Amino acid sequence: MSGPNFEKAELLPVIAQDDESGDVLMLAYMNEEAWQETIQSGRVCYYSHSRQKLWRKGEESGNVQEVKSIFYDCDADTLLIRVNQIGGAACHEGYRSCFFRKLDPASGDVEVIGERVFDPNQVYGKS
Amino acid sequence: MSGPNFEKAELLPVIAQDDESGDVLMLAYMNEEAWQETIQSGRVCYYSHSRQKLWRKGEESGNVQEVKSIFYDCDADTLLIRVNQIGGAACHEGYRSCFFRKLDPASGDVEVIGERVFDPNQVYGKS
Repeated sequence: MSGPNFEKAELLPVIAQDDESGDVLMLAYMNEEAWQETIQSGRVCYYSHSRQKLWRKGEESGNVQEVKSIFYDCDADTLLIRVNQIGGAACHEGYRSCFFRKLDPASGDVEVIGERVFDPNQVYGKS
Repeated sequence: MSGPNFEKAELLPVIAQDDESGDVLMLAYMNEEAWQETIQSGRVCYYSHSRQKLWRKGEESGNVQEVKSIFYDCDADTLLIRVNQIGGAACHEGYRSCFFRKLDPASGDVEVIGERVFDPNQVYGKS
């Protein structure tokens, strides 16, 4: 067998990494249906825990993730997908990466790194 | 509140990224105790699902992960830690990264990328 093993868990974690910069953009989950859609469409499709349905990343904002390459780990239960992040921002808060907060473990201070690429209020509206 | 929120889940996923190369090395989990030990010791300590205890990464192999910087995501339920991977290999199979298998979605072919840094049989022995 090759590829991720969905017999280990219904949902497997997926790390999205920017193919150009190497920045880690986000972590989300896929079920087998989302995985199949991703490899067939060439665009990353996650499964949303909270909404209990397929989450075609960027469907609303336009910030889709084009698949550049796919890796899976030694346990076949985690995926790493290198992507071309259309629109330049993966995070729904408008940042390039969801990991825009840096924590200083000594002081507990938090620093926002990276700038906002878009204003979430303008992209998602109030609906 | 700042930092990861362990009220969301007992175990939070943690992405370890090589601070120099930007390579994603592995994904594992922390509970709050592992998190506290990590920030106090400056070495990454995970929590092992399967062994049900703290997993001081590299305790046996010597391949510890020195914390370089810590980020958490917009939902405060995922950590990204940039590390200095001592010994050059994060994966128990001896590879630099656990994501050493690349999958071609069109053909289903799997290619091993990256070379073995150590031979697991020599490092872990038979005990």
